[in-house]
Formats: sequence, structure tokens, C-alpha cells
Amino acid sequence: MTARHRGTPVIGLDLGGTKIAAALVAGDGAVLARHTLPTPAARGADAVLDALAEAARAVRRQEATAIGVAAAGVIDPASGTVVSATDTLRDWAGTALADGLAGRTGLPVACDNDVRAAAAAELAAMDGGEGTTLIYAAVGTGVGGAVAAAGRILHGAAGIAGHLGHLPSPEADGLPCTCGAIGHLEAIAAGPGITAHYTRLSGNPADRLETVAGRAARKDPHAVSAIVTGARAAGRALGGLANALGPHRVAVGGGVPRIGALYWDSLCSAFAAELMPPLRTLRPVPPGAGDDAAVLGAAALTRTLPLHPPRTSGATP
Amino acid sequence: MTARHRGTPVIGLDLGGTKIAAALVAGDGAVLARHTLPTPAARGADAVLDALAEAARAVRRQEATAIGVAAAGVIDPASGTVVSATDTLRDWAGTALADGLAGRTGLPVACDNDVRAAAAAELAAMDGGEGTTLIYAAVGTGVGGAVAAAGRILHGAAGIAGHLGHLPSPEADGLPCTCGAIGHLEAIAAGPGITAHYTRLSGNPADRLETVAGRAARKDPHAVSAIVTGARAAGRALGGLANALGPHRVAVGGGVPRIGALYWDSLCSAFAAELMPPLRTLRPVPPGAGDDAAVLGAAALTRTLPLHPPRTSGATP
Repeated sequence: MTARHRGTPVIGLDLGGTKIAAALVAGDGAVLARHTLPTPAARGADAVLDALAEAARAVRRQEATAIGVAAAGVIDPASGTVVSATDTLRDWAGTALADGLAGRTGLPVACDNDVRAAAAAELAAMDGGEGTTLIYAAVGTGVGGAVAAAGRILHGAAGIAGHLGHLPSPEADGLPCTCGAIGHLEAIAAGPGITAHYTRLSGNPADRLETVAGRAARKDPHAVSAIVTGARAAGRALGGLANALGPHRVAVGGGVPRIGALYWDSLCSAFAAELMPPLRTLRPVPPGAGDDAAVLGAAALTRTLPLHPPRTSGATP
Repeated sequence: MTARHRGTPVIGLDLGGTKIAAALVAGDGAVLARHTLPTPAARGADAVLDALAEAARAVRRQEATAIGVAAAGVIDPASGTVVSATDTLRDWAGTALADGLAGRTGLPVACDNDVRAAAAAELAAMDGGEGTTLIYAAVGTGVGGAVAAAGRILHGAAGIAGHLGHLPSPEADGLPCTCGAIGHLEAIAAGPGITAHYTRLSGNPADRLETVAGRAARKDPHAVSAIVTGARAAGRALGGLANALGPHRVAVGGGVPRIGALYWDSLCSAFAAELMPPLRTLRPVPPGAGDDAAVLGAAALTRTLPLHPPRTSGATP
């Protein structure tokens, strides 16, 4: 459970709803081999575990010492199981992910959710040691993320650490949140929150965030206002959280920041306005690992989380 | 610098503006001896260091192995110096606190600010190991505190971790904060913030929080509203922070909560309303160590922070 393999390559697997990405990752973070195959999402947990094992085999070399798996949903790294998941993968909740994959590959397996894995890659790239604090926000359909402190990704009570979208936000005052509370950041700053705010302001329906972004590009003042408000709310909340935690880096990823400079610039200026004087030079950055974040993050899990060894049947006690 | 003394007694010193409290604290947290003497605040840093050494001597037994000092202001535990301080102690900023006291006592010294020290005592009492997360708020003239994660008190970039009063607060919208930003929690939830809000609501001046609390006890609706608003703002911010970090305990200390049940009950209900479902049973608690928090916390610093050894002049390399 505690072996670490800083020097030897490990396999990173990113399990998505449509595809599985695999990479063999060297100790220095270099990708030595890649493979991608479709996720058999409709065929149940055993089929998914078989596909993960096949993806691992495709990139494996003899010296690979462990597998890290990043997956959506709530994953318990200690037990290596899927605590809860959406319906994207049939019968996925409750799956013994680590044991199932370790049994199929003969390698020890560590696992966690995909956002924490991406944050683990970001943290590994910072290389700041035990005093390092990182705030990693993922702004998309929701506002999630991860927090690293004392050099590692926090899990927190009930595994809840990283739910950055559920801080009270002045911009979200009175709006219902997906969690059941009122006035949380996610209600105004996630993609659906921005889209709904546009509709409130304009009276016009919009099916998705990209529609609002397109109208903002054509100078629709309600679309501009909805995007700026969402960005500002996120920037303010992250700035306040920075005052509380003193992060060495604040990374903001996810689909929403990709809608363009209007969003990003509004987020950064709102963030800056919140900071206490000793932090004034801190600015949010996009995640550093880009498209490789998921597999690099999955690989990084093997260096910080419990490794679940392959069980040998009939072993003596 | 790295020796730890879990089993042996250590000396905890709490340096305040009017008195120095000293205790000899056993490995299990029991107080074996106490001493108090006045702080020679007007006589400069050397006199304060002499008084700290005298207080340490008064409780010292042969087996004491280290001294921990808790002091107000910004303290850098790595260098053992006072980075900045108010004018309460003359010429205190810049003092080599750890080296000065180690030289006077012959014992290694660890130091940090008093709120972090109190949080260290709270954390030590939790005894939750490396996965433990604690939010410790101190609501008084300001809103400060400390955050522990991965089993230790965070310092963060620029030593700023724990500034819980500088999160954006819907209740503080538009109010100037002491840090220069607008709309931070401290502006509505600290003692002066509650007092100022009472004056805004009622048009009546109030010299201090106790005056407002007295009027609230006599059912002055503006006084009740100001206290409830400050408590609610603090509860909401701490609830949101709990969602982001997943603390195993949220402790709320400082002078403001002592004004009574109206404040405490309002804070707790606002906190509860923010929580995501997996945290729903979490509630704020008063700090556990009570009046001994400062000296116990000071003693606890010796177990987690760098110890600055006495320098021997003329030592061989």
C-alpha cells in the first residue's frame, strides 16, 4: 500500500464516458507511450474494467510498476471503490475499481476522481514540497475543483474537499443552488448559471453557454453582463479563498474559461481586487498540463495515494 | 531544528500586551506548573525577551526540552522573527524572538502567532492524524483564524493562511474592509463591523460591541439585527469554506461569540444552511482548550514547527 515509485514509469488511465486514454509516464512526467480506446459504457462494470486493463496493456512496458486511474464521480481512494456516479457508465457505482483492475493486470492500483487527478498533476508540476498550497478550480457544468495543502491533495471529511462552487457569493444572492442551499457561487458562475442569468436579464432563451458567448461576441449587452457576472463571482470567491489559504498557485480550468478573453479578463480582475496586500501579485493561471492533464494526473495518483495490490487467491494469512 | 519531544514536558509562553503567561505542559497536555508576570511593554524588545525568559524559568523543570512562544502580530516560524506588530509592544517588530529567547534559556524555541498557536492546541486535542482538517475562526476586533490540513497548521504563501475575514460576504456588500478591498466578511462580522452596522441601522452611536449587545438584550430591534447579520455573515462564510475544505471540526473563538446566545445561535443556523448534504451534521464548536488555549497552543508549537537551537558563541564548525 505504501510503495512509491518516483523513478520508474507508471501507467495513467483516464476513464471518460466515451473514451479511455492511457499513457505510460516516466518519473519525470514525460509520456513514453499512449493509447486510446472507446469506453464500453453500456456494457456494465466488468466490461469497463476489462477495457481499462486492455488500455493499460497497450502502453505497458516491463518496468512499469503501478497504475493510476482518474474517473468521474465520487471515488474513495482508501477503499479503491466508486462511491457514486452518474448514469453515464451502466452499473458503475459500487464498483471495486482498484481491486478489479489490480486483479486483471497484476499491478498495484491507485484511483481518485478526475478533477483531483488533474490537480495532482498541477501540484506535481509545481514541485514545491511539503509547504505547497494549490487552489484548482474547474468551472464547467458545475464549479468544482481541488485543494492541495501541505504538499498534497485534500480529501476532507466525507471526501468533500474541493467543492469550490458552494461558497456564498454576493452575485448569486437568492439563487437556488444544485446542492439545495441558496446563493452559492455555482448558481451564477457555472455554465448553466451564466446561461440562466442571460435569460433572466434578456428574457430570451438560450440553450447553452456557447450561444450566450456567441451573442456576447456580437455585443449583446445582456450576454456580456451574464458572462462578466459569472466570471466576477468566480474571481471574487477564489480571491477570498486565496486570502484564507495563501495558495502558491490558483489554476482555473474547465470548459467555461475557454469561452474567451471576456470571461478570463473579468475573472482575473475580480480576483485581484479581493487580495490582501501580501498576495497582490498572485493571478489565476490556466492548468499547466493541457490535454495531458488527465493521464498525467492519473499517473501522479500512484505517488501520493494508497496503492491497492493485486490479491493472490489462496494466499496464506 | 527537527527534534520532537512528544513524551517530555515543554514550556508554553503566551505573550500578550499586558501579561505573559507561562505553563509547563506534559506530553499528554496536562499543565504541570503555571506562572504569570506583567509584560514590560514600554521597555523595548530586550526587556520583553528578559521577561519571557524569567517566565520560562519560573515553570521550568530539569526535564523540559523546548519552549514554544505564542505572540500577537505576524511571526515567521522559519526565521523565528517578528515580521510585523502593532505598537502595543515598543520596538517589537523585527525582534529575533526565537534566537533571543533560546540564547537566554539554553533551550530550543519555536514561535508563531497566538491564533495559530491556539489552533495548534485545538488540532492536537483532535488527535486525528495526517488526514485531519480544522477550520479555526477567531472573531474579535477582526476576523482571523487558522486552517489546518493534512494534520498541520497551514502558513501559506506570504504566511497569510488563516485570514478568514477576507472572503467576500453578501452581507458586507459595498462595505469597505480594513484590508482595502470592498465587501469582505470582516467589515460586517467583526466587533467594530457589528457596532458600525448598528449605527447605520439605528442612527444611534455606540462606542463598543458590548453596548450593542446590551441594547439587544433590551430588545432594541436594530441591535438585534446588527448582531444577527454579523453572526449570519460569519456562519455563511464558514459554511461555504467547510464545503470547500471538508473540515473535521470548525471551532469559533474570540471575543464576539461571547456576547451571547443570540450571536451563537444565529451563526450556527446560518452555517448549517450552507452545508452540502455529506456535511449536514457538522456544527461549529467553541475552542476546546478554554483559558488554557494560548499556553497549550504555545507548547504544541514545539511539536510541529522548526525549533531554533541556542547558539553557542565560538562553537567549532
